[in-house]
Formats: sequence, structure tokens, C-alpha cells
Amino acid sequence: MLYPGNAKKEYHKEINYANRGMDLEALINDANKYYYINDLAIIYKKPTPITINHVEYPNNQKVITKATFKRKSTLDYVGLYQGKYLDFDTKSTTSKTSFTLNNIAKHQLEHIKKVISHGGISFLIISINNQVYLFKGEDLIYFIENEKRKSITLNYLKEKGYLIPYSFNPILNYLKVINNVYFKTK
Amino acid sequence: MLYPGNAKKEYHKEINYANRGMDLEALINDANKYYYINDLAIIYKKPTPITINHVEYPNNQKVITKATFKRKSTLDYVGLYQGKYLDFDTKSTTSKTSFTLNNIAKHQLEHIKKVISHGGISFLIISINNQVYLFKGEDLIYFIENEKRKSITLNYLKEKGYLIPYSFNPILNYLKVINNVYFKTK
Repeated sequence: MLYPGNAKKEYHKEINYANRGMDLEALINDANKYYYINDLAIIYKKPTPITINHVEYPNNQKVITKATFKRKSTLDYVGLYQGKYLDFDTKSTTSKTSFTLNNIAKHQLEHIKKVISHGGISFLIISINNQVYLFKGEDLIYFIENEKRKSITLNYLKEKGYLIPYSFNPILNYLKVINNVYFKTK
Repeated sequence: MLYPGNAKKEYHKEINYANRGMDLEALINDANKYYYINDLAIIYKKPTPITINHVEYPNNQKVITKATFKRKSTLDYVGLYQGKYLDFDTKSTTSKTSFTLNNIAKHQLEHIKKVISHGGISFLIISINNQVYLFKGEDLIYFIENEKRKSITLNYLKEKGYLIPYSFNPILNYLKVINNVYFKTK
């Protein structure tokens, strides 16, 4: 069966672990494919919306010959896990010590708030200094509304976020962290 | 705030109630916009995935100059309502008496099964003979696995489906039907 994302191609893309930062999206797509194949969750990257200006039909195939990208007004990933709606984004920073809030557009923050208010799960997966953290939407909102700083330090992320450790398959098994953070039984 | 779908444009599209069938998608997009603005739910149409073959940069704007459509492997709409994940499709038929199963691709049926098995809500919104019905994914699967017919008759839909009555705003207030079907308190 077809995997319902764009991951097929990206999955085979070479993953770059070089100093300038790994390809976080490729790792998340890889994990999502693993979850899908193993029937653990349905999580996929939303296609980027485009505005189509011109279409032609050579050999009876519909080909777009002019289109522009639209701003994505939500987060990159959406999914379903154990009956819960997930909506999240990946963010990479080249800084080794802090994650600047400039990385988060205003409409993305509004979307995170909306998702949480309607009972969904929303978070960021942040790659910093070759480590990857899950940072809950609730904690992000708290930070923005209460701290006067323009960036989240790595130390803050270590304290309030959740490290996603590297594993074998998938490399970034972030559902394990979601289990601990959102589904922990008492 | 930007509505996270493609509905903005489609919303202003002229709605066609002519004999050949109304524009079901436009009505659903209209309802979704209403739900979003009134903070009742977050439901949007997934962008159609494309394969980009060529991109140019006139005036520093990124313009796609060649792309083709990819098959959408899921259903058209995804959303979050009262903590539940929704995943559904709209289907229109010009027949006045039955809805043929040819309208449902195999991968769409698989997707419906997957969504249900992971605790999500999945259904079809079917427009037939100027009436609109919500047909639960569970009932669709039952029909396909147990009935030997290749189409669902209007009478069957009337019996097993749920009529979405026309109302003022939004015209197709399908969340009201979802409330009765999926959220009914005992």
C-alpha cells in the first residue's frame, strides 16, 4: 500500500549527519514510514500548498507549467496515534546553544494553541547541537507568554524538553517519547 | 489568521446548485471555514501532492515551471474535533438512485480501515440526488465485505447513512450529524 506522505522519495535521500546539522525532516519521515508499515501510527507530512496558474495536457497527461508556493499556515506534520490527533513541526538550528523564537511564525503559534484547545497534541521537534528534543506546545506557549527572552537556551530545552535519543530503527523513535510525555499511565 | 486550508479561494467560488449536482466540496469547505472562524473545529482539505520537476526564480520568486500531480493516497479532509481525529472524503454521484463503489479507490478504503483501527473517525460525505448523507467508514467496510453488490442504493443510504440537512449557516452543518453519530451521550 502507498504510504500517505511524500516520504517515499525522501526516505531514500541521503541523510546528512555532517557538522552543519543532520537532516531532521528525513529522520522524521523515516520514522513515520516505520510507524506506518508497522501499523503503529498514521503520521505524514502535509504537502506544501501551491497556487496553480497554468496547466497543459501533453500526451493526455496533466502537467502544471506555472505554479507558485503558498505559505503553509499550519505545521508540517499531522497524524493519528492511539486515538489522538498529532500536529507538529520540525525545527533545526545551527546555533549550538540556543533556539531563537524567530524560527516560529506567528500563525504557527496560533495553530499550536488552537490544536491544544481542541484536545489535540501539538509540539515541536527541535534539532540543536546534534541532539533532538521534543518541546511541548504548552511549554512553548508558557515560555513565550512568561519569559522575556527571544530564544530558548539549550539548557532550558534540556530541562523542560524531552530528549529523543538515537536508536537503531527508526533512528529517531519519537513516538517512544510521546508515550512517556502524553500517554504515561500512573 | 490564515485559515489552514485552500478554502479561501474555493469559498468565494460560485456554488452550483444546478441539476447536475451541487458543488459538494465548496459546501464542505464553506462549513470548515465557519467551524474554524467560530473555533468549533479545525478541519481542512489536504493539498494535492505534486512532483516538482523544474523550478525557476524570476524576480527572486520561486516559480514551479514543471510539475505533475501525484495520486492522493489518503482522503481529502483531515481535522480535529473535540479531541478526535477526523479523516474523510466527499463523493458526488450523478446517479439519482445509487452510489457505485467504483468511486472509492482501494487505497482509500485501506486508509479508512487504518484510521478506524487507530481510533480515528472516518466516513464519506455522499451527495446523491441533491441530498447529502454521512456514511460511516465502519458501515462502508461492512457493506463491501458482506454485500455482493457493486453499488449502494439510495434506499440503503437512507437507512444506514445519516442525512445532513441543509441549514442557513453553514449550509451543510455536518458537525451536527457527527455529534449525533459519534458523540451522542447516553
